[in-house]
Amino acid sequence: MPEAASAQVATRATVGDSEFDRDTAVTLRTPGVYDIGLSAGWTIINAVNGGYLLAVLGRALADTLPHPDPFTISAHYLTASQPGPAVVRTETVRTGRTLSTGQASLLQYDDEGREVERIRVLASYGDLDTLPDDVRTAARPPALPPMEQCFGPEDGPAPVDGSSAITERLMLKLDPSTLGWALGQPSGKGEMRAWFGLADGRDADPFSLLLAVDALPPTAFEIGLTGWVPTVELTAHVRSRPAPGPLRVSITTRNLAGGFLEEDAEVWDSADRLVAQSRQLARVRLP
Amino acid sequence: MPEAASAQVATRATVGDSEFDRDTAVTLRTPGVYDIGLSAGWTIINAVNGGYLLAVLGRALADTLPHPDPFTISAHYLTASQPGPAVVRTETVRTGRTLSTGQASLLQYDDEGREVERIRVLASYGDLDTLPDDVRTAARPPALPPMEQCFGPEDGPAPVDGSSAITERLMLKLDPSTLGWALGQPSGKGEMRAWFGLADGRDADPFSLLLAVDALPPTAFEIGLTGWVPTVELTAHVRSRPAPGPLRVSITTRNLAGGFLEEDAEVWDSADRLVAQSRQLARVRLP
Repeated sequence: MPEAASAQVATRATVGDSEFDRDTAVTLRTPGVYDIGLSAGWTIINAVNGGYLLAVLGRALADTLPHPDPFTISAHYLTASQPGPAVVRTETVRTGRTLSTGQASLLQYDDEGREVERIRVLASYGDLDTLPDDVRTAARPPALPPMEQCFGPEDGPAPVDGSSAITERLMLKLDPSTLGWALGQPSGKGEMRAWFGLADGRDADPFSLLLAVDALPPTAFEIGLTGWVPTVELTAHVRSRPAPGPLRVSITTRNLAGGFLEEDAEVWDSADRLVAQSRQLARVRLP
Repeated sequence: MPEAASAQVATRATVGDSEFDRDTAVTLRTPGVYDIGLSAGWTIINAVNGGYLLAVLGRALADTLPHPDPFTISAHYLTASQPGPAVVRTETVRTGRTLSTGQASLLQYDDEGREVERIRVLASYGDLDTLPDDVRTAARPPALPPMEQCFGPEDGPAPVDGSSAITERLMLKLDPSTLGWALGQPSGKGEMRAWFGLADGRDADPFSLLLAVDALPPTAFEIGLTGWVPTVELTAHVRSRPAPGPLRVSITTRNLAGGFLEEDAEVWDSADRLVAQSRQLARVRLP
């Protein structure tokens, strides 16, 4: 390997030794109880990103359960999390040979020091490495222009007001055909597509997939709505261990009605495998 | 109304007074604890149908929580339920003005009388009647032939072996273009579409929508697989109170891989509203 290329590779963060790993690491206090400081580095308009929080809960459950990988994780978001101290309480619901199921709660403290629950999660874990290779998928990867024809937050004035520290930690390159909202011309279609990675070059793993499914701008922006789109519930399926390299994420909304919408995400890896799917129910502020 | 038509209407079961209502009714034992006898009438190949069980849990949570309707309910299926006595234990996780969140477990008893957990559920409830009428949906109802050109279990030899009492309680008319599997010629596409109702004519409500999302034959059959397709996790969103009349249900699978598949269901009412969406992760037995 030429020296320059070697030096470049050496500066890339690796799984287990990256900002994402450090900021999602939980510390065992007593069996099933974990401490964590929620990092201010993953905030979007001053709220802690829901995908980052899901990854924190996912790692605590991976420590509690006998299986390593979240096959399906369902999170109900109760109150808005703040950067700072938090505790995760886990419970083993059932352990089986192929799958085990657990529950976890993320809690923070109010002004009187009382615990306030932020998120509750149910999840079934397995081991992705034990799955057969059989793939009979009808799905095709999203059609995305090459990365250099896509646009990130660094390519223009911040399209979203407020502090969004998370944008510094992501490699996010949005398909220009889903960027009309940023130019005041939303397409009216509930679609958002992007190349996705971590800014420090860390490759994807099942936990960063939990971040990936909730890291793009809301599809509601392309439907012409603005403002915060808080998640009520998000369920993610991790279907395969992602190959190294950038991910492609596609988000689709079919039904905006009654002040709620669903967001369906698909995450594809560099080997053209559909590695994660998610759906969330979110609230929108109608004009 | 002519006398004959009036008599016909009089024989239809109504919401609150139907087999489905009686078989999903839970009896309060102590606050948050409910007894129920799981009916043998909703079994499919001797297993109690997962949608029926979800409706039972949904009704218990509706009794516990201050809001009446399941907006989003996530169920992780742990062990196979049997017809007979069961208990539902609920917990109020959070109550808010618009939404409240609860948790519920369905338990049965082993030979030594110990409780065995069958299903654990997290759900956020609201009141569908308070939602604004605003609809900006990109989704269109599934293309289904008229009901009289579709086929139900009564139209041919039972395509699935074993006792399937549930078929007597459903009005299920499958789109012939998704019925190849029953003739030994699966289409290879992961699609299943049907007209859906309750056999006694009871109209749909949010709880019967929980049944509707898991009542069609598995899409895996049309992909050419056979055998049981047990649900690992199912999340359903109820988006609108359904209008009277038959429902249209469409199920799609995009990704069968590694011995698992997702099933996405959409339920449309007679007023062309998308009233429920669901996604489940299920296991398949690979040949």
